[in-house]
Amino acid sequence: MPSSGNSYKVRLLLALLDQPVQTIDVEYGSDTLTQAKAETRLPFGKAPVLELDDGTLLPESNAILVWLGQGTRFVPKDALQQAQMLSWMFWEQNQHEGVIAVRAALLNYPHRKAQATPERLAELLTSGNGLLQIMDDHLRMRDWLVGDDASLADLCLYAYTHTAEARGGFDLAPFPALRDWLDRVAALPGYVAL
Amino acid sequence: MPSSGNSYKVRLLLALLDQPVQTIDVEYGSDTLTQAKAETRLPFGKAPVLELDDGTLLPESNAILVWLGQGTRFVPKDALQQAQMLSWMFWEQNQHEGVIAVRAALLNYPHRKAQATPERLAELLTSGNGLLQIMDDHLRMRDWLVGDDASLADLCLYAYTHTAEARGGFDLAPFPALRDWLDRVAALPGYVAL
Repeated sequence: MPSSGNSYKVRLLLALLDQPVQTIDVEYGSDTLTQAKAETRLPFGKAPVLELDDGTLLPESNAILVWLGQGTRFVPKDALQQAQMLSWMFWEQNQHEGVIAVRAALLNYPHRKAQATPERLAELLTSGNGLLQIMDDHLRMRDWLVGDDASLADLCLYAYTHTAEARGGFDLAPFPALRDWLDRVAALPGYVAL
Repeated sequence: MPSSGNSYKVRLLLALLDQPVQTIDVEYGSDTLTQAKAETRLPFGKAPVLELDDGTLLPESNAILVWLGQGTRFVPKDALQQAQMLSWMFWEQNQHEGVIAVRAALLNYPHRKAQATPERLAELLTSGNGLLQIMDDHLRMRDWLVGDDASLADLCLYAYTHTAEARGGFDLAPFPALRDWLDRVAALPGYVAL
């Protein structure tokens, strides 16, 4: 789904790993989305889904990242750092995405407009600033979310954070450590934009 | 947090592994919760958090499950099955918990009552039934969510599913495969109730 941060995460990791993939776009309202649903190729009804060569379908963006990232520089060798990476990735799906990405969706997708009430947008702005603050606080003393190098935690949280201003209407000025971190991700060799 | 399914998941895994742990209860409104927040011992502001012997704090229930479960019977040996286990765990945090657990929270926690409007409860009932249907469909042909044995995917999804009727107001009668699976989890040696 070209407009989706969850899909972009996977494209970004594949680009950083210089690994080719065949993609089928399933944007909202497209025939390909209707067809993918009819063929039950979206096990949880959502994109992205990774289809392996043997036909196995793997849903959930962050599970796809772990599958594709295993044994690469983006998964720490240390078991505790792996668990810390997963903490950020679960937090991203449980807290960050449900606020930062949802505010962007309400503001940008025509089919979500009805839910974009001033009260809901204000509530999401306040919660979202709290979440961005958690990231900024954590990044004040370190370059990457976990350990000394970029990991899947950074890639997964970059997806919806780097569009928080343009799409979500958040102001990142109060979060300088977060902004520097966004620049570091964008400088990774092989980086592709959304 | 004794009332929380996310905390219960961790207690359940530790009981199944017969692994002792010292717990500090941080129920809503308790002094221990206020104190834990003041001492910044809840990195993302939520329970549960696992504190290791060296003081490292690991938040996010499903990341704690992965950390404690590594090398045990609850993590499949096969890398693809591990990724499939994570798919269910990310789905649990991104979809299932935000609907099934949230409906239970609105109905049971006094501080959430104001959000428990009839419209919101009806909307969560419809979405929740869709999510329970995905699980029931998947479990019709198999005993466990991934592979041939119980995994962290089953434990994490059991937590809020087994209280969906009593706390969330869902009717599980239309989901026979799901109900059989709940019985299988409850029959695991060492099982403890919430």
